[in-house]
Amino acid sequence: MRIPILKLYNCLLVSIQWELDDQTALQFQEDLLHKIHETNANGVVIDLTSIDFIDSFIAKVLGDVINMSKLMGAKVVITGIQPAVAITLIELGISLNDVLTSLDLEKGLEKLKQELGE
Amino acid sequence: MRIPILKLYNCLLVSIQWELDDQTALQFQEDLLHKIHETNANGVVIDLTSIDFIDSFIAKVLGDVINMSKLMGAKVVITGIQPAVAITLIELGISLNDVLTSLDLEKGLEKLKQELGE
Repeated sequence: MRIPILKLYNCLLVSIQWELDDQTALQFQEDLLHKIHETNANGVVIDLTSIDFIDSFIAKVLGDVINMSKLMGAKVVITGIQPAVAITLIELGISLNDVLTSLDLEKGLEKLKQELGE
Repeated sequence: MRIPILKLYNCLLVSIQWELDDQTALQFQEDLLHKIHETNANGVVIDLTSIDFIDSFIAKVLGDVINMSKLMGAKVVITGIQPAVAITLIELGISLNDVLTSLDLEKGLEKLKQELGE
């Protein structure tokens, strides 16, 4: 299983709707970075609305993919973080300090547009 | 495996990026109809850009899901149909006569907005 990555204008949209196993998470990381390279996207929205639990490995992969995307020049907005996910991320010390977050996909895209000065 | 369905404003976005097996296709049909019901979406964009081959069963499921969505009051735009897919659809007699189609996701969303009078 792989997670589809949609390209909309100059942004990539990803919606994670089911709990990821480790292999899928790593595949997602690779796919997203390739897609950023391939499409020259300068923004990424990762929507977690449907996720109500993440384990430490997935949290780490998520933290990593955000930092990697930044290195490649793409701004990342995480949307729809649920309470339990927020708790897990903070307790695991995953630094999302300088990551943009929003309540839902629409607001995330708007925030990204603002940030990119469009 | 299930196909993620994204909600953006009043539309649903689906990107099918890998060949579907029969079970996944039927699950997708069910998920999409439930999501239309749940979100009151009045438009659906199904992006097939990454699909370069569909078999007769998937083609039938696709034709069905378009007609079912219409019955539920949602307009469907299919985007990114590749030559081989177009050939398969026509040869199988899948009637996409009154279905909106577009070259890519951006144009599909714009067409949908026009159709919905926004």
